[in-house]
Amino acid sequence: MKKIINDVENIVPEMVSGLVRTNSDLVKEIPGTTAVVRNDAGFASADQVGIVSGGGSGHEPLHAGFVGDGMLSAAVAGQVFTSPTPDQIYEAIKAVDKGKGVLLIVKNYSGDVMNFDMAKEMAEAEDIKIGTIVVDDDISVENSEFTQGKRGVAGTVLVEKILGAAARSGMALDDLVKLGKKVVDSTKTIGIALKAATVPAVGHPGFDLGEDEIEFGIGIHNERGYSVEKIQPSKKLSQELVEKITGEFSDKSGDFAILVNGMGATPLMEQYIFANDTLDALKAKNINVSYSRVGNMVTSLDMVGISLTIMKADPEWIKWLNEPVKTIAW
Amino acid sequence: MKKIINDVENIVPEMVSGLVRTNSDLVKEIPGTTAVVRNDAGFASADQVGIVSGGGSGHEPLHAGFVGDGMLSAAVAGQVFTSPTPDQIYEAIKAVDKGKGVLLIVKNYSGDVMNFDMAKEMAEAEDIKIGTIVVDDDISVENSEFTQGKRGVAGTVLVEKILGAAARSGMALDDLVKLGKKVVDSTKTIGIALKAATVPAVGHPGFDLGEDEIEFGIGIHNERGYSVEKIQPSKKLSQELVEKITGEFSDKSGDFAILVNGMGATPLMEQYIFANDTLDALKAKNINVSYSRVGNMVTSLDMVGISLTIMKADPEWIKWLNEPVKTIAW
Repeated sequence: MKKIINDVENIVPEMVSGLVRTNSDLVKEIPGTTAVVRNDAGFASADQVGIVSGGGSGHEPLHAGFVGDGMLSAAVAGQVFTSPTPDQIYEAIKAVDKGKGVLLIVKNYSGDVMNFDMAKEMAEAEDIKIGTIVVDDDISVENSEFTQGKRGVAGTVLVEKILGAAARSGMALDDLVKLGKKVVDSTKTIGIALKAATVPAVGHPGFDLGEDEIEFGIGIHNERGYSVEKIQPSKKLSQELVEKITGEFSDKSGDFAILVNGMGATPLMEQYIFANDTLDALKAKNINVSYSRVGNMVTSLDMVGISLTIMKADPEWIKWLNEPVKTIAW
Repeated sequence: MKKIINDVENIVPEMVSGLVRTNSDLVKEIPGTTAVVRNDAGFASADQVGIVSGGGSGHEPLHAGFVGDGMLSAAVAGQVFTSPTPDQIYEAIKAVDKGKGVLLIVKNYSGDVMNFDMAKEMAEAEDIKIGTIVVDDDISVENSEFTQGKRGVAGTVLVEKILGAAARSGMALDDLVKLGKKVVDSTKTIGIALKAATVPAVGHPGFDLGEDEIEFGIGIHNERGYSVEKIQPSKKLSQELVEKITGEFSDKSGDFAILVNGMGATPLMEQYIFANDTLDALKAKNINVSYSRVGNMVTSLDMVGISLTIMKADPEWIKWLNEPVKTIAW
């Protein structure tokens, strides 16, 4: 294994330190944690519901890259592919509560769900009102190594963007929870891998694929998917994913948003080619793409691969997706 | 070779199509070319010197990702690792000239220098005033496979940002050329690779490195560097690069800007760890970092590696680096 790191044990604090030191106008560390909170001039006077997300590290820029005005208020980084601890999540909640309550956006992994729930109880004991949204956009498999039900993957960033804009607009906590559930229900993702990720503490890829093989339905922690196939042209790959994902939407009218997400080691060139093919495949189905985004948003360390997220979106969600934010990575 | 592509011959037009279709509020294609030009509402009334950059593809988001208000007016994409043709560059020049002349920002490769120069002559024959800045920030080697003198690498994006802001502020062409030369002279880069890039038409990495080896001084087209060493901790790597680069600056007082640039397949986690170590190494030398940036800006397809750029910056350049822009990737 060759990686640009120092001690495997210090990867996360050193990463968070590098992120904060190079973006001190946007974020700062919450002392004694590997959580970051907004540090922009507008945060002190922001009179809104706070939004906290987080999870295991290795998915950068998720979540810390999306902290800022109009998106997350704070993000909590756990060890690589490991849930953050309840006390760190609790510190983040306290750092962002303005008396209007705090919304937790949690990817559906057993560890995250449990630890965010414990932090919620700690905060409620301090009379902080908490709402929780669990994101489970990955339609490729039911249940998985670390999950009961479906996994939360790249669609999370779209959920964070829409709820961040809605919270900034003044929406109350209860309404944000209702909106979040509707957004999650309308968001569907499948990922494919050409090469698995190498977790630093493990030192080799999480699973092996042949020189001409590709895996459909992978998760963002090296979870295997639903089939291994021979590598195919981008057009075929995008058609397969579009077919599977759009099959989940009974109503194909109205606005749709898409995210073509690089898994970490996939050149942007290939992401744009795949996006081009995906737009063709959606056009052939008369599906109207009102918002599209391409890039490394929710990665899996050095995994080579891509995921496609399709969201059936209310017109207001499209407006919220387009609103400017001040973050590192949106 | 596993890549998410269709025909190798169509990689660049399909990539440009995907980029434009997913960012039509920002850029559009110049018909009959693989060049893109600003498409934002402000472009029609922008009364400024136009800025055109470009070069071989495979370095995304450079250059098309940096087209927009406050940065480039247009970008020309050649085939992978191959200069764009003079006629395409000429079309881009014509698309952005507002009567105040056009500045060309060219990375120092023989093909690019020649083809941008031919396009310049074509434009001057039409009475369009042209200025040229050649970027040669890579201090690792003199001359190289495709270069006379030093190579133009990641520092190019900082040059584009500063000149883009200066042009937007109303600076005249002659002054932009003078400023550009000063900025280039103040910008120094070295890159390292853990794994070479695989050019799609070639199908295998451009050179081989052992399982524990790292190459110092690589270029962005698989050009070999100045030494192969055993992999070292990030702290050691950053110290070596900081030592070599800062040795180029006789005056170490005042403001410096840095860019930690991922080469395409390097996780953001490692880039932040390296940035953290680089800030420590610069602090130990009492060098004042007034601007810092981390991310995949000037890549080399799926190369695993990183480059460090250090610029000795006038206070006004720091202001220009911080000014907001509307681009895909800045």
